Amino acid sequence: MSKQIVVIGGLAAGPSAAAKALRVNPGVQVTLFEQSEHISYAICEIPYYVAGDIEESSRLVVYSPEKLRQRKGVHARILHRVEEIQSVKKVVLVRDIQTQRVFEHHFDALILCTGSKTRSLGVEGEDARNVFHVKTLEDGLQIKKFISAESPKQAVILGGGYIGIEMAEALVRNDLDVTMIHQHALPMEGLEQEFRERVVEELRKNGVHFVPNGHTISLVRDRAGTISHVVTDRGTFPADILILSLGVEPNVDLARRSGVLLGKTGAVKTDERQQTNIDSIYAAGDCCEIKSLVSGRPFYLPLATVASKAAWTAGENAAGGSARFKGAIRAIAVKVFDVEVAQVGLGSVEAEQVGFNVATNLITGKSRVGIMPRSADVTVKLIIDKLSKRLLGANVMGTESAVLRANTLAVAIQHRLTIDDVGQLDLIYAPPFAPLWDPILIAANVSKHQFTD
Amino acid sequence: MSKQIVVIGGLAAGPSAAAKALRVNPGVQVTLFEQSEHISYAICEIPYYVAGDIEESSRLVVYSPEKLRQRKGVHARILHRVEEIQSVKKVVLVRDIQTQRVFEHHFDALILCTGSKTRSLGVEGEDARNVFHVKTLEDGLQIKKFISAESPKQAVILGGGYIGIEMAEALVRNDLDVTMIHQHALPMEGLEQEFRERVVEELRKNGVHFVPNGHTISLVRDRAGTISHVVTDRGTFPADILILSLGVEPNVDLARRSGVLLGKTGAVKTDERQQTNIDSIYAAGDCCEIKSLVSGRPFYLPLATVASKAAWTAGENAAGGSARFKGAIRAIAVKVFDVEVAQVGLGSVEAEQVGFNVATNLITGKSRVGIMPRSADVTVKLIIDKLSKRLLGANVMGTESAVLRANTLAVAIQHRLTIDDVGQLDLIYAPPFAPLWDPILIAANVSKHQFTD
Repeated sequence: MSKQIVVIGGLAAGPSAAAKALRVNPGVQVTLFEQSEHISYAICEIPYYVAGDIEESSRLVVYSPEKLRQRKGVHARILHRVEEIQSVKKVVLVRDIQTQRVFEHHFDALILCTGSKTRSLGVEGEDARNVFHVKTLEDGLQIKKFISAESPKQAVILGGGYIGIEMAEALVRNDLDVTMIHQHALPMEGLEQEFRERVVEELRKNGVHFVPNGHTISLVRDRAGTISHVVTDRGTFPADILILSLGVEPNVDLARRSGVLLGKTGAVKTDERQQTNIDSIYAAGDCCEIKSLVSGRPFYLPLATVASKAAWTAGENAAGGSARFKGAIRAIAVKVFDVEVAQVGLGSVEAEQVGFNVATNLITGKSRVGIMPRSADVTVKLIIDKLSKRLLGANVMGTESAVLRANTLAVAIQHRLTIDDVGQLDLIYAPPFAPLWDPILIAANVSKHQFTD
Repeated sequence: MSKQIVVIGGLAAGPSAAAKALRVNPGVQVTLFEQSEHISYAICEIPYYVAGDIEESSRLVVYSPEKLRQRKGVHARILHRVEEIQSVKKVVLVRDIQTQRVFEHHFDALILCTGSKTRSLGVEGEDARNVFHVKTLEDGLQIKKFISAESPKQAVILGGGYIGIEMAEALVRNDLDVTMIHQHALPMEGLEQEFRERVVEELRKNGVHFVPNGHTISLVRDRAGTISHVVTDRGTFPADILILSLGVEPNVDLARRSGVLLGKTGAVKTDERQQTNIDSIYAAGDCCEIKSLVSGRPFYLPLATVASKAAWTAGENAAGGSARFKGAIRAIAVKVFDVEVAQVGLGSVEAEQVGFNVATNLITGKSRVGIMPRSADVTVKLIIDKLSKRLLGANVMGTESAVLRANTLAVAIQHRLTIDDVGQLDLIYAPPFAPLWDPILIAANVSKHQFTD
């Protein structure tokens, strides 16, 4: 009988791992269990669907179960929840949610892709019909439907992370009056101070009412049971619709119950082969921690880019291969109305926390040759280890060409270049695309002077 | 008496080297001799000045002699030609072009920045008043003046390198009917075949008549002495204005006469300190060859990016420092109407020529998430050393976000990453900026399969 691989979870890592296993070893049988009714959809695109950039919700679905079976050979079973992993017996207990029947399913190798779950607000009323998370395809469809059916006027967003910010723009584009309540003084933890300040400025410029240091006390329901107001320690705000973007945490209940070890971050711990402490169990995606290629320490980085690479590795190894995923540096970007903001590698505070002696340097250069039309400011902040002069991280922002410049710095960070190396990079100069001294080179060269002076 | 540094040449490398020498050692005296009447101007921007993107010609001048003196302390003497370097006696013989007086000027260290010169056509009529090179600020001013004063209708461009292509667009935007005659089947030598074909397609789509494999036989003058037709082995073409963009060669007459050694490329040979075979003589910019960081061999790369870095090194060392310029990979880009085309590192033919066993891989991905508005194709070709799997070069093109992606690959090439390394790069995914699998990652991952299959 052929080798049986079970994959738990159908959003991003699961289908990738499943398809990869069959690609490297077409002799295996792969069964994927997903408790919801959707698999393999574009979750990061939900704010753009709400905004109207993406018109057809069907375009958000990458693979239906049928298509995943036909194209990749994966048996995906939706509305099936794995309730128990018996790792010695090598079976999972699966509940068919429609019939409530529970059955055993054998595995030779298992891949945990249970993802993350949204943090909840922890106050009464969170389940009201006009309160939404932005975590699933269903969430996106419901938000869009609610806006179109009920024409809400006032929106409150709780949380100023990147999903909150993307949703703020999406709601403004739907002509809502948006208030964002954030628990800290500035949005986007992890970004540098100067960049977080610019994000607030851009939000306010576009009519978003940003409320700093606000903590929700209660939600006020009207008679119909709909939330009408959000009561915080910074005031009470009317809300026809409430978006919760409070961040995510790894969904590890099943793993914990099954004897799978968690790391210090609270997420599943794996080796570079994506294998857990139990030989037959692999894990990938938002339920796992990964290694930071900058600090060498485990960290929690629930991103699709990381999930995909880890999933390929888990899938290949579950099928008998020997792939390795070495980790990631963190490479993220957000569009805040007209401004691009990107972060690669460590932030300055984080870098201090993990023990580096940090120097930073902030410069503003130009996206194109300064005298060319549409040339715009690009601001770069480098985070440098004083001892080795190694580049540890960078933030880049501007109204154009900021994000892709951050990618260039990402390679430098991942491959441990010093700022001297960065200053000697041979980069393109062409008037319509980049100035003679690219902002990247200016930042590195100014940093060099900091150290030699 | 303070150390005397003489710099010969005032375009790009010269002023950079001069300013750098004074920055690292404010005690030196720096005199710069330039035979024309302009120094320190934006030469790569000339096509965009002709096109109308840059309206004021004054904005093309970065430093006037006065400004260079005030801001940087450099004594720039325009309309002064150095005719002889007596390296034993450590003097230069300088001709004041206005008075024709020749005088001696002492130096302790000398920096040769004599640049490049345009190749000539070698047929009678090249000096006619409607024939232009695109090499100096004066050329740019004259072209613009000629177009505005005489409203030419038909333009012929001889040469299909990047300046020819930029001028084609500039002239089309001035409503000229443009014919480009090129000596080979496709323009842009050095780019990959598929990319060169796309350049022709884009030129033709925008009304440029591209004539392949054409060699000029003669120029026909009308009675006023103006050129009226270009006679080639591919036909005779009417021309109200003729642009010569036949490429450049190092301007090394003075170096050769002075005993400065040239390399195999025909350009001045220096070490990493930018020192020539004569201890007191440094060189930088388009008159020099540099080391390819990909092949390890000297090559000729007359680009402003290289000139700037080499000039800083020469300036610092002439002033008593110990800087090094290790070389470059080649990083160039050209805008062909609506298409961005970039090349970094070696081309496939060139890589074979220098002894690599080459594999290539061409893919087309998306600039942003495919279902987002304005997402466009980005085509990437990787040039890989089969033996080491090292990335040797890449071409990238598309209607957006191609050039900055080439910069990311430039770092990989300069720091000798393999395609496995490139496939593991942690790059940004954000719907408005980049897809989950960036075209760079797709290209690397497809390449990996080539090697493992």
